[in-house]
Amino acid sequence: MFPLPDPMRAALEAAQAAADAGEVPVGAVVVRDGAIIAVAGNAPRSLCDPTAHAEMRAIRAAARALGRDRLNGCDLWVTLEPCAMCAGAISHARIDRLYYGASDPKGGAVEHGPRFFGQSTCHHRPEVFSGIGEGEAAKMLRAFFADRR
Amino acid sequence: MFPLPDPMRAALEAAQAAADAGEVPVGAVVVRDGAIIAVAGNAPRSLCDPTAHAEMRAIRAAARALGRDRLNGCDLWVTLEPCAMCAGAISHARIDRLYYGASDPKGGAVEHGPRFFGQSTCHHRPEVFSGIGEGEAAKMLRAFFADRR
Repeated sequence: MFPLPDPMRAALEAAQAAADAGEVPVGAVVVRDGAIIAVAGNAPRSLCDPTAHAEMRAIRAAARALGRDRLNGCDLWVTLEPCAMCAGAISHARIDRLYYGASDPKGGAVEHGPRFFGQSTCHHRPEVFSGIGEGEAAKMLRAFFADRR
Repeated sequence: MFPLPDPMRAALEAAQAAADAGEVPVGAVVVRDGAIIAVAGNAPRSLCDPTAHAEMRAIRAAARALGRDRLNGCDLWVTLEPCAMCAGAISHARIDRLYYGASDPKGGAVEHGPRFFGQSTCHHRPEVFSGIGEGEAAKMLRAFFADRR
């Protein structure tokens, strides 16, 4: 097996930390010029914030760090296919490239459901790469939901 | 002309305040048991946050105020048709009813583009009412973009 790229490794670690905190295990990382500038895990319950998906938190942290509301020149790495909310945010933020791990037939909005980046109402489309770290990301999600049954 | 319901009046005032601050004029309000529990204007530039649409800010403020990540029993009033990001957040937040003013053929995700609430990957659909305060909301947006040309 090939080793995972560092950003996906960091996203998977953030996903595991989310699981340890009782949240659905999803993690995300924003990279600029080869450096990780934001890492976040999914945290809607602990933050009392329905918008606190990993991608949203990483995007918000990166924008705050850069002092601007657009993340041109930045890539987002996330362990799970983004939902409609997060795909919309990725577009608004002008993310260059999106790398995600597991696909999400139930809630994904990139290759499922709205397929948002293909809509005429989507005004910025990142380049999309999927499947990196997919095995580990999916295993973590399965373990989380199995524990809760 | 009928007078506007108080929540839409408050949302329009928040939209005007956003315009005065140089932001695209959109405002949103969360109502619970007939009382306004959160009001917010669109503020991505001033907050350096691409996710800081009026709806997102109102939902986050309401969830924080109630100390939970789901807004069952709450309605959202917004001056413009929500985009994919905001429609996703409305669904995640379990908003009961969505009232919006102007429709948005360019970026809307309720009656345009992804029509998110009709997707099988959307797991909670609010009741939707549109057109309330539409004239004023659209006029404010037109004036804002005309000034910027």
